[in-house]
Amino acid sequence: MTYHINKLLAAVAAPPIAEAHGWIKGRQFPADKPLIDVAQAVPGYPPPTELTDHLARIVGEPGSARYTEIEGMPPLRQALAADMGAFYSASIEPADTLIAAGCNQAFCLAVMALAGPGDEIILPLPYYFNHQMWLDMQGLKAVHLPFRPERGGVPDPADAEALIGPRTRAIVLVTPNNPTGAIYPPAAIKAFYDLAKRRGLALILDETYRDFLPKDGAPHGLFAEPDWRDTLVQLYSFSKVYCLTGYRVGSIIAGPALIAEIAKAMDTVAICAPRIGQLAAIYGLEHLKTWRIGNTAMMRERLQALVKALQANDVGYELISAGAYFAYLRHPFKARPAEEVARGLAARQNILALPGSMFGPGQDEFLRFAFANVPAETMPAIGRRLAQSAS
Amino acid sequence: MTYHINKLLAAVAAPPIAEAHGWIKGRQFPADKPLIDVAQAVPGYPPPTELTDHLARIVGEPGSARYTEIEGMPPLRQALAADMGAFYSASIEPADTLIAAGCNQAFCLAVMALAGPGDEIILPLPYYFNHQMWLDMQGLKAVHLPFRPERGGVPDPADAEALIGPRTRAIVLVTPNNPTGAIYPPAAIKAFYDLAKRRGLALILDETYRDFLPKDGAPHGLFAEPDWRDTLVQLYSFSKVYCLTGYRVGSIIAGPALIAEIAKAMDTVAICAPRIGQLAAIYGLEHLKTWRIGNTAMMRERLQALVKALQANDVGYELISAGAYFAYLRHPFKARPAEEVARGLAARQNILALPGSMFGPGQDEFLRFAFANVPAETMPAIGRRLAQSAS
Repeated sequence: MTYHINKLLAAVAAPPIAEAHGWIKGRQFPADKPLIDVAQAVPGYPPPTELTDHLARIVGEPGSARYTEIEGMPPLRQALAADMGAFYSASIEPADTLIAAGCNQAFCLAVMALAGPGDEIILPLPYYFNHQMWLDMQGLKAVHLPFRPERGGVPDPADAEALIGPRTRAIVLVTPNNPTGAIYPPAAIKAFYDLAKRRGLALILDETYRDFLPKDGAPHGLFAEPDWRDTLVQLYSFSKVYCLTGYRVGSIIAGPALIAEIAKAMDTVAICAPRIGQLAAIYGLEHLKTWRIGNTAMMRERLQALVKALQANDVGYELISAGAYFAYLRHPFKARPAEEVARGLAARQNILALPGSMFGPGQDEFLRFAFANVPAETMPAIGRRLAQSAS
Repeated sequence: MTYHINKLLAAVAAPPIAEAHGWIKGRQFPADKPLIDVAQAVPGYPPPTELTDHLARIVGEPGSARYTEIEGMPPLRQALAADMGAFYSASIEPADTLIAAGCNQAFCLAVMALAGPGDEIILPLPYYFNHQMWLDMQGLKAVHLPFRPERGGVPDPADAEALIGPRTRAIVLVTPNNPTGAIYPPAAIKAFYDLAKRRGLALILDETYRDFLPKDGAPHGLFAEPDWRDTLVQLYSFSKVYCLTGYRVGSIIAGPALIAEIAKAMDTVAICAPRIGQLAAIYGLEHLKTWRIGNTAMMRERLQALVKALQANDVGYELISAGAYFAYLRHPFKARPAEEVARGLAARQNILALPGSMFGPGQDEFLRFAFANVPAETMPAIGRRLAQSAS
């Protein structure tokens, strides 16, 4: 007789990225039509040599192999607080921060601190699948905020208000958005903040892609609100901006009382974020500003090139929204489920994109293109191949 | 109006190690009576230079910064399966393994795969506090197996059988034990396995300290059971054996069906264990066997020196059990709570040990000494200071 499996976990679908990579497993691609992999949001360039040289120099120091404080290394918390404070023209203290092993973990920890089994979390459609997976496996109910393609994918606070009930604990916003690439306007973010505040909810604001905004300047003014610590829980990642995906470093900014609760969860889930990754993040914050600006510029160029490639020709795919790392497209095959379309693109056009259906119900018309690792000069090929698929 | 806090998390006490370090915060210790810190289980020596030299060489390779597969890098899963298979004279496949970011995370993931809110897990007293914390914050009920000091801290399977109910999902054993240092005899481990198998439960066997057993040879024969995959879930850590605590690498070995469920949880909690830590673990498994044997010998020497220091003099503290990284002592102050005794030792004897009360109810007579980072020649000083405190 074998053991039971937790039903909550068993009901969760297998991780989508791995599934999509399975579609092309073992395939060889011709030189004249190489694979364009827009499935996973990873930077296409490696971390800068000066960063890895720095890591090579310090990896042999005995201290580099030790645990850090649960909340993260004090110099990193200080550097992060200073960086965020400067970016948002606000006062953020090191005690408001916690370093997690990546932004996915940051989300898990924040949710654990805010909600228990049976509680509800408002999650806009389409969602980042790992968010939905975590809520499902924790016995939390994800209450879906309708997708608004006609608003460029920006969710409507009025929709959210109608969904709030006695067990609602938080509203989750991801901006720049994954999967749609939508950049939520400051007024929309503020409206969600005001709603959350008025109703005694947390606003979980996932800003993983903050460093790849299409325009300079702060994307919202929430940190300048005098009592932001009573409502705002901001998540961030060092993975994308310094190309440290495999090092697993992200962060949470919230009021110190919530940070203290989150630290308990962090201690059990990870003890601490890996020290070497934290050391890399410190170096990044202190020395890589110019490099970071260069990457922001490159990502903007890629975005423009993709948009141009989709608009210049009549490719048959409608661009709903795009920004930072992602574009969300409506495919032209109305009757066909998104997964069938995505598999077809992989099989015949050698483009690996994810079907909207991986990002929630009602998304069968859409595909996500994580274009961040695609050079600008490749974008026209995406346009041509899409046009070919639609013809 | 501010947000709610998850009551399950709010009810969990603050992480104990950080609390204990708070007792000595800001204190200076004299040269003739330096601090002996036996609070946290960390190796007292750094990783070997050849390992950190290896990491320095590969850290600049572009691939070193990337995500790995959710379940871990295939070469690491293969090397781990081979190492475990050889150690236990058993057949263990790479598909039976998953790499987690440390053994704490391995425990969290395994429990998530086996039990949901309201389910019960049998946990022997005294417990490793992070295990209890995780069960509490997940809404699981820890059913405590009585402490058996008269059995040298080895729990009694008959006790466990009486505690099994319809919601019981797993029995947790930690051997070598944290906090007691007890080495469970093969027959006891087998009896728990048979019980778990008969009752359709998982046996979660945490072998974090496997590499520091006081004797050579496999500590149990469970992996040689033909259907171990239906019952056994083994947890392991690379942190201690290769001094990689801050790199966060551990593992789970279980049947592939459970590994597939655990991968879903791993994807959300961490995406993957940090690649650089996985690369370090591969190097360790492939190149550091001699170094590892040397450390095992050193740890045995430290254990013997501590036991001798406690037995040679009449120090007033009774050794209940000791092994691998830990010793569990009964203090001589019957009326005094363990925390008061531990604080007194820190204040007056400059020994930072953890009170038994941090490891569960009914543990006020005891203290945990995590002696692994204390050189053998320092053990007599521990004996002298304890004798002084008892006089």
